Amino acid sequence: GDEDAAQAATARQAVLTKPPGSLGRLEEAAIRLARWQGREKPALERVHVLIFAGSHGVTARGVSAFPAEVTAQMVANFSAGGAAINQLAKQSGAILIVTPLEIERPTADFTQAPAMDEADFLTAVQTGFDAVPEGADLISLGEMGIGNTTAAAALAAALFGGRGADWVGRGTGVDDAGLSRKAEAVDAALACHGEALSDPLEALRRVGGRELAAMFGAALSARQKRIPLLLDGFVCGAAVAPLARLGEDGLAHAIAGHVSAEPGHRKLLAELGLKPLLDLDMRLGEGSGACLAINILRGALACHNGMATFAEAGVSDG
Amino acid sequence: GDEDAAQAATARQAVLTKPPGSLGRLEEAAIRLARWQGREKPALERVHVLIFAGSHGVTARGVSAFPAEVTAQMVANFSAGGAAINQLAKQSGAILIVTPLEIERPTADFTQAPAMDEADFLTAVQTGFDAVPEGADLISLGEMGIGNTTAAAALAAALFGGRGADWVGRGTGVDDAGLSRKAEAVDAALACHGEALSDPLEALRRVGGRELAAMFGAALSARQKRIPLLLDGFVCGAAVAPLARLGEDGLAHAIAGHVSAEPGHRKLLAELGLKPLLDLDMRLGEGSGACLAINILRGALACHNGMATFAEAGVSDG
Repeated sequence: GDEDAAQAATARQAVLTKPPGSLGRLEEAAIRLARWQGREKPALERVHVLIFAGSHGVTARGVSAFPAEVTAQMVANFSAGGAAINQLAKQSGAILIVTPLEIERPTADFTQAPAMDEADFLTAVQTGFDAVPEGADLISLGEMGIGNTTAAAALAAALFGGRGADWVGRGTGVDDAGLSRKAEAVDAALACHGEALSDPLEALRRVGGRELAAMFGAALSARQKRIPLLLDGFVCGAAVAPLARLGEDGLAHAIAGHVSAEPGHRKLLAELGLKPLLDLDMRLGEGSGACLAINILRGALACHNGMATFAEAGVSDG
Repeated sequence: GDEDAAQAATARQAVLTKPPGSLGRLEEAAIRLARWQGREKPALERVHVLIFAGSHGVTARGVSAFPAEVTAQMVANFSAGGAAINQLAKQSGAILIVTPLEIERPTADFTQAPAMDEADFLTAVQTGFDAVPEGADLISLGEMGIGNTTAAAALAAALFGGRGADWVGRGTGVDDAGLSRKAEAVDAALACHGEALSDPLEALRRVGGRELAAMFGAALSARQKRIPLLLDGFVCGAAVAPLARLGEDGLAHAIAGHVSAEPGHRKLLAELGLKPLLDLDMRLGEGSGACLAINILRGALACHNGMATFAEAGVSDG
């Protein structure tokens, strides 16, 4: 990040016509955008919402309330403009790019084998990396993939410890039996891959999925290009978490858009030291929570860039 | 509210291409807007942000970090377009109307006498009532008035019990001594007005202020005109609270835009049974938290009105 820009933005916040600190997290957000855009007055003109979709072999274990073919059906719905993320991207003034990752070819069932072989994994990471355009003002991430909250739970357990029951939730709405199957699938994955999971990238390859690998690649790309990154829910958070395990400030450019209703997400954000902007009981995925939070960032910058200073407005500063 | 419209909106949410309930509080918000706009597909085309400003005699007691003249200076800043609410109203696509209420003539110091006489009080209520236009899709409330968190604390104590220390906070940023002076001012007001405060309207007249009375009038007007109402922070919440005390469903049309950093606000929302949309440590007033929440409502309606149904999209519904 650009410390000079962050300091200039902090100094600017102190002279705007409001009690110091009274815009709370809007002030923090403006300063973080300044740091990662490298300018005192950040902008949100080129906002890209990147959604990656993948299919999961673990769906054979009965871990989702929806059949596996819904992944392809929802990708078609994205193309037709009918999904929640289409509406939210439009409403927040963002460009939506949906990238399906070989959804006709599910990953391997990770309770028995690595989800991806190395070539497959690297292709997915590279696809995500390349999806981040130079010069974007903000990247907002999201995903679609029936079965992927089980992958996210397995990855979270691999990275932060605990068992299946500590990380699984109802996802799109499984019943109690489905919830047990999810926990069992995670535990089976932890047993199957053992020590190999202690390497964060290897954990992502073995128990993740293509859309998770792509989100990881996009997060890494945004970091290298110094573009602020807005995170969505549990699956997105788990996918980018290896960055935080690989380097202490690996997610310094990230803002948690929201905390979802999936219980593992709140725990994951605590592990990552990220405080979400929104907490609206959402659990849809598709980048929907992050995309909604773009509006909050726009509000933060509207104030940061547009407000008068005490001197400009002739207001006593207390 | 219109129960038929609410039921039609609820039925619509159930067939949109997402797991049932997965948009969480966005679904609730869309249904509440449907109920109060009286149509299955609500709109937010005519959104009015109404800001009322007033001056307070209690400022003589040293209850604010800012001098009393800042009220008039900030009203000038609103007119010039330099305040936070100007930027946020523009960003959220709302029409901003600022109504100063005789700010050159402060209310009486309510630790010693009623803040307003009856004529004064009714004029302020009527001004707020008349500020709500027929046919608006949403009214978003806010205020400006140095000293008014002390009035809000006194009003909250009058309506819900407790002493000054239970309801005061640092407002625009008073130090510990200022915080004690606020608590003492509230206690003095409770002692001075005694039993008269058991009538909610009388409490508003005696320990409120003109901008609080106007927000009350606007909330009542929105209720009668069946326009959904978006609430801002502690002062706004206290001002409209008498409606909830006068009738059980007096605030059924209200949505809490945010919970502010002023500690009394969270308590007040709990008393009112309202769950805030946003929790961003904001404590600026000016309707800023509510105005930011307009974006959340826009996102909710973008999904509600724009998403494809399972049948339309050919997606399996689980």
